[in-house]
Amino acid sequence: MDLTNLAKQMAFIHEIDKLKYIQRKTRLFNSMRHENDAEHSWHLAMMAMVLAEHANEKVDVMKVVKMLLIHDIVEIDSGDIFLYDTNANHDNTVEEQKAAARIFGLLPVQQAKEFISLWEEFEAGITTESKFAKTIDRLEPVLQNVSNEGGTWSEFEVKYDTVLKKTCRMKEGSEVLWDHTQYLFEESITRGILKKN
Amino acid sequence: MDLTNLAKQMAFIHEIDKLKYIQRKTRLFNSMRHENDAEHSWHLAMMAMVLAEHANEKVDVMKVVKMLLIHDIVEIDSGDIFLYDTNANHDNTVEEQKAAARIFGLLPVQQAKEFISLWEEFEAGITTESKFAKTIDRLEPVLQNVSNEGGTWSEFEVKYDTVLKKTCRMKEGSEVLWDHTQYLFEESITRGILKKN
Repeated sequence: MDLTNLAKQMAFIHEIDKLKYIQRKTRLFNSMRHENDAEHSWHLAMMAMVLAEHANEKVDVMKVVKMLLIHDIVEIDSGDIFLYDTNANHDNTVEEQKAAARIFGLLPVQQAKEFISLWEEFEAGITTESKFAKTIDRLEPVLQNVSNEGGTWSEFEVKYDTVLKKTCRMKEGSEVLWDHTQYLFEESITRGILKKN
Repeated sequence: MDLTNLAKQMAFIHEIDKLKYIQRKTRLFNSMRHENDAEHSWHLAMMAMVLAEHANEKVDVMKVVKMLLIHDIVEIDSGDIFLYDTNANHDNTVEEQKAAARIFGLLPVQQAKEFISLWEEFEAGITTESKFAKTIDRLEPVLQNVSNEGGTWSEFEVKYDTVLKKTCRMKEGSEVLWDHTQYLFEESITRGILKKN
């Protein structure tokens, strides 16, 4: 029994409880309550398991699930960045890198390295697994907004052009899910919950 | 593109959002807010990844993670059963079996079968993976109570004997984690947040 390893792991398990306090701008599927990062991460992991067959290339599902479970942990320190925020740059900021080093750094060295590397792979979005993981991460808020009378699109007056710009890279992970998303956009425009201009 | 499969998968993804409304008796690590089943499932999946090395036997981590991500989904229909509830039998009730058939049954047949089988394996607690998954499921509330001035032990006046009876099977999944848990019990008794009689 490696007590030192276990103590470090327990410190990490305790620390990441804070992800349950990080509120997203999006709301639950049929509710006005904001989603938190922990339940968001759970939902994405479930989606990845269920939708893996639609990835453009065969993916290592375990790797995608792991990525999605940890992808927002840095937000414990850096906070949630809204997808449609025009001022903030969401991608791998210095603040997020510091957060990754601090939080994953609570773990034994090898595990810390593995998680940081997995998070960096997700952020870079170059590998098959990270492209699919990012597709899933983009899909959930679309489903929520469609289910929730426009959700963040209505609340923050986000127009179709902006939505398209922020989501079109979904096709890199899954043409099937991107086609479905475009169908949902069209339907939302018809319903008046997503505005063209 | 199998539209029928995708439509079924989307219905499932939508339905399981309801897990975010199922409140547990336990509270977050440093808060009076109750934990919900979705964030609980996320935390357990993280714990399984981090603590896998302490399993008594080498486990298929992906299988454990999958089990933990889905293990409480039946509670969307059947509700959360408190571990220390003396009236309710937590294990695989008829109500839970119906819930599994209904909710996982939203998925394409093969996926539904896979998830139901995985859930049944977890409930039975016979295989290496399900024993370890159950150990993790028992460990989290202990950590929360220790972190939270006794949590449910204090709130519902649950004594050490009952706690021991409900947690001792943890050793079937991990002797290391069970040893650590017993250490936490001793510490809690000394601190007065867990009562012997």
